[in-house]
Amino acid sequence: MGFFKPKVTVYKPVKDVDLGPYSTEHYLQANVKAPRMTGILIKIFIAIMEFPIIGTLVLFILKGNNLIHDLITNVDLQESPLYVPLHHSEDKKEKEVKSIDSSSSPPEKVQLAIHCLPESSSSEEEETIDGIEQQHSFSRWTIMDYYKAYSSGNTTPSMVAERFIAAINESVKPPLQMGFFIDYNPDDILRQANESTLRHKAGKPISVLDGVPVAIKDEIDCLPYPTTGGTKWLHKERPCEDDACCVKRLRLCGAVIVGKTNMHELGSGTSGINPHYGPARNPYNRTKIAGGSSSGSAAVVSAGLCPVALGVDGGGSVRMPAALCGVVGLKPTFARIPHDGVLPLNWTVGMVGILAGTVEDSMIVYAAISGEIPSDKPSGTPSKINLPLLSMTKSISGIKLAKYGKWFDDCSDDVKLCCSQALLKLQNHYNWKTLDVTIPEIEVMRLAHYTTIGSECSASLCSLREKNLAEFGGDARVALSIYSSFSSLEYLNAQRIRNRQLQLHMKILAEADVIVSPTTGVTAYSIQDDALKTGELDYINGAALVRYSIAGNFLGLPAVTVPVGYDKLGLPIGLQFIGRPWSEATLMHLAFAVQAISLYKKPAQYYDLLRR
Amino acid sequence: MGFFKPKVTVYKPVKDVDLGPYSTEHYLQANVKAPRMTGILIKIFIAIMEFPIIGTLVLFILKGNNLIHDLITNVDLQESPLYVPLHHSEDKKEKEVKSIDSSSSPPEKVQLAIHCLPESSSSEEEETIDGIEQQHSFSRWTIMDYYKAYSSGNTTPSMVAERFIAAINESVKPPLQMGFFIDYNPDDILRQANESTLRHKAGKPISVLDGVPVAIKDEIDCLPYPTTGGTKWLHKERPCEDDACCVKRLRLCGAVIVGKTNMHELGSGTSGINPHYGPARNPYNRTKIAGGSSSGSAAVVSAGLCPVALGVDGGGSVRMPAALCGVVGLKPTFARIPHDGVLPLNWTVGMVGILAGTVEDSMIVYAAISGEIPSDKPSGTPSKINLPLLSMTKSISGIKLAKYGKWFDDCSDDVKLCCSQALLKLQNHYNWKTLDVTIPEIEVMRLAHYTTIGSECSASLCSLREKNLAEFGGDARVALSIYSSFSSLEYLNAQRIRNRQLQLHMKILAEADVIVSPTTGVTAYSIQDDALKTGELDYINGAALVRYSIAGNFLGLPAVTVPVGYDKLGLPIGLQFIGRPWSEATLMHLAFAVQAISLYKKPAQYYDLLRR
Repeated sequence: MGFFKPKVTVYKPVKDVDLGPYSTEHYLQANVKAPRMTGILIKIFIAIMEFPIIGTLVLFILKGNNLIHDLITNVDLQESPLYVPLHHSEDKKEKEVKSIDSSSSPPEKVQLAIHCLPESSSSEEEETIDGIEQQHSFSRWTIMDYYKAYSSGNTTPSMVAERFIAAINESVKPPLQMGFFIDYNPDDILRQANESTLRHKAGKPISVLDGVPVAIKDEIDCLPYPTTGGTKWLHKERPCEDDACCVKRLRLCGAVIVGKTNMHELGSGTSGINPHYGPARNPYNRTKIAGGSSSGSAAVVSAGLCPVALGVDGGGSVRMPAALCGVVGLKPTFARIPHDGVLPLNWTVGMVGILAGTVEDSMIVYAAISGEIPSDKPSGTPSKINLPLLSMTKSISGIKLAKYGKWFDDCSDDVKLCCSQALLKLQNHYNWKTLDVTIPEIEVMRLAHYTTIGSECSASLCSLREKNLAEFGGDARVALSIYSSFSSLEYLNAQRIRNRQLQLHMKILAEADVIVSPTTGVTAYSIQDDALKTGELDYINGAALVRYSIAGNFLGLPAVTVPVGYDKLGLPIGLQFIGRPWSEATLMHLAFAVQAISLYKKPAQYYDLLRR
Repeated sequence: MGFFKPKVTVYKPVKDVDLGPYSTEHYLQANVKAPRMTGILIKIFIAIMEFPIIGTLVLFILKGNNLIHDLITNVDLQESPLYVPLHHSEDKKEKEVKSIDSSSSPPEKVQLAIHCLPESSSSEEEETIDGIEQQHSFSRWTIMDYYKAYSSGNTTPSMVAERFIAAINESVKPPLQMGFFIDYNPDDILRQANESTLRHKAGKPISVLDGVPVAIKDEIDCLPYPTTGGTKWLHKERPCEDDACCVKRLRLCGAVIVGKTNMHELGSGTSGINPHYGPARNPYNRTKIAGGSSSGSAAVVSAGLCPVALGVDGGGSVRMPAALCGVVGLKPTFARIPHDGVLPLNWTVGMVGILAGTVEDSMIVYAAISGEIPSDKPSGTPSKINLPLLSMTKSISGIKLAKYGKWFDDCSDDVKLCCSQALLKLQNHYNWKTLDVTIPEIEVMRLAHYTTIGSECSASLCSLREKNLAEFGGDARVALSIYSSFSSLEYLNAQRIRNRQLQLHMKILAEADVIVSPTTGVTAYSIQDDALKTGELDYINGAALVRYSIAGNFLGLPAVTVPVGYDKLGLPIGLQFIGRPWSEATLMHLAFAVQAISLYKKPAQYYDLLRR
């Protein structure tokens, strides 16, 4: 080390950083230096990376080329590390909310959530503005649709389960091969549905979720299924012995758990192209990716198979596929939903999130599964949970949306146009204000987050990686190689950047209610044939997808994505709101406001599998 | 990596670990594989370690030889990481304490501490047991001695300051060259003393600390001095701009700050042999080390120059030199004393600690400086601080002392004999009980702590190390090389071991009030001439010194050392108690009980510098 003295990047103290619109802080665009690789190229690359010394050198050069050394390793930082993005109870009052006790039972919470629904939530009514005619009018079945149909006797959970199983069976076969599920068990689905049917027949459903099909990402423990994490081996090393806490809570409400959805292997990528279980395909166009890593959870909701599915979001993994598949994705504040029974692929960035066809349904399930485990309440978490009174959304005034223009516009033309228009409409329709701000060092934060999630994943799998190496897909195997290359200095500097970024974000969120951005920089891209067997390394598209997701994970802030339109190919685009800690209710109000003024809604090509 | 599959160490789940006396858990003795090095050997070693690739390989081999790979890197662990040893308020009631408000002012707290002193605290009375005649009877001036002398007019702070300055001037010159201080400013000392003298003359001393000389380790900010951390360069990179919080509190009580004490360079070793400022010499024998890294703080108290000094304890750095110099060393619970204004050489293991001639004096200063900063109260820290009613110590019944025999006895014969006898006397005299237990994986914890403090120090100095490399002493330079070799996986696994060890210790401390052990495995060893210029690498003696210190830092548990006797050469030996979180009062009770029955007290060879 004494032989060369690297350049040192000096970070200004937070108090001296200008967050205003005319700040001189430079917006550094991601400049990912890594070619797309699949097939034989990936195999050669793996051999090089795993070769002693040579591999270390290659990784050193790769990290240098991708600015890790400049921005994370050789830096002068004042901040101490922030290891876990755990927030103290928030003092700021949210508007138009119902405050519920976090220790209430899940069915009680769901019952309270029902009182927050707008009058129109179960009707097909669509509000049209600007006099533009709706080109399509469609809606997926919502939780209330199921509940009303079950209550009226029009259908039963058992009938729905049978149709569901038939639809899935169809989706698996050519020509569809949608890759929605890693595992589903018809007997288990029918058993649950029959029990629910009996409850409904007896006039005693547990809650509005009774008999409603819900899918679970295969990163979350859920009996009778093994938890594969998208691999062919992890469940053999770590048997699933119980339901995760969030799954238990859904069962307590009577939900029918319909199976384990497909995901990007080990959550190590964003495309959802899984070489072991096939790519999860986008219901809007089956030649396109569903996004990831909660790929199947987004796709089944998009396809109308379930109103709601659970995912896990460690780096946008709920919000990105939700945006790409045209559904709502809600990632609550760190520690808002217990993490018990989720694969420990990392410890500080991943959180359970909700994918739903509507904001209302995301709220109902949020009510059902949020709140700490009473015996294990992390210090600082609030004892109350706010639910948004969605019937009052339109009357909320004075909302301020922070927008960082250079970042907001760093996306494809279609995404930029669509999100800008949505923001304009929101301003005009509700008279909310946009506040122009500067959010410094966003690319630094992305690299620091990558260092963190990579290091944690590497430590989490350290004893298992070597012996199962042959069973890894190509891109996950490369990812784990990179993950294992970080030094403890880099990990700790990343935690210092975390502290710094949290302070910067909290300053902005002291002035604004939320930060607004597109959810992804690009829409769903094509699944290429050469990627099917080995997986695909595409860090450039990956960086574009993940561009807006990081604060939600690295800083533990809540965030929501809601569909706002489509690109020229008809692929969905999402708008994202990032909120203050514990402000999920405000985020749902905003998402609901967007949903209410959406110009038109285009059905997924395969949305009606269940209705056939 | 795919080329060789390392052996994986599988750690049992905590719930399955037997902590009883007949446990099959293996006691792994430290088996440090590193020769003692000084002079030209160190220089060659540095050249090799800092050579690209070769250095990396050498470090890899060194880490492997010293079990880092077997015990930290290639392991199967269930626990999630515990990043910061921050404890929640303790429910267990302590016996015979006065509970004070942590937000009271320092002089108020000191006033309350005075009420906890035993009647005899200011007299020379010594209790002799077992009919053994005291071979010596000596005592250093205590805080109350100063206070009474000032109050009666027998002396003044100004007169004490003049004698202090004369004594220090003598200690600097041959033949003594004791290496106590890195910096002291006679004008500043006299100015403070004169102000105190005026207050005493006016009959308005601020507290019993008014006019009492207190020395500060040169790792703690204290005007008008630069904070060198034992280096020749750090103060140029990081100017000292304010007093540390603990220094401010002492000044608020009227204490006279007499200078910055010598320390092991960057706290990176335990001998206190500083190549830039000379070795801190042991007042009991100037050819022996004082221990470290709070070397000078222990030595000045031992020599009777100050009744109290502040140190910082990141890996026993207060307790080890206290034991080696025959004084009391108290390291409170993590976050009990604000860390503001202490060099950020690490973030999660270092804590301000107190070195004092008597338990009573450590309690008075503990009262003065403990309690969080109200505006920055870490979540979980208690709002009350307990002080021990030392007059009631003898009446406390039912104390249970956990002892792990194999570990307790893993020290030199003199230390073993002396500490065992002290423990027996304690049982007989107070009727307290010893509980035989097994504390598993102590050597694993030492390595995990080393990984942690090394990684944090490396990150803390990352931007400064390269450019100041030439100014490092040899052993600190080697230490920083090793520190920079840890991977993020190793850091994270160390934090998982931290979680595991905290659970194990809390189980033991649920049954016992404290864990008892020697403070160090060896007594003060010789300062060899070849070490003076380059510093000394002696990881074997280092590991023996640090053997009993780790839980206090890595788990944030409070701990105290108290002198219990001397080895054959007349060098001091300390006994250590490790307590539950926030149980400092209990620890002081126990230390006071030991102090009260100490067979004889031998003065340091140089203890009377101030009285000449």
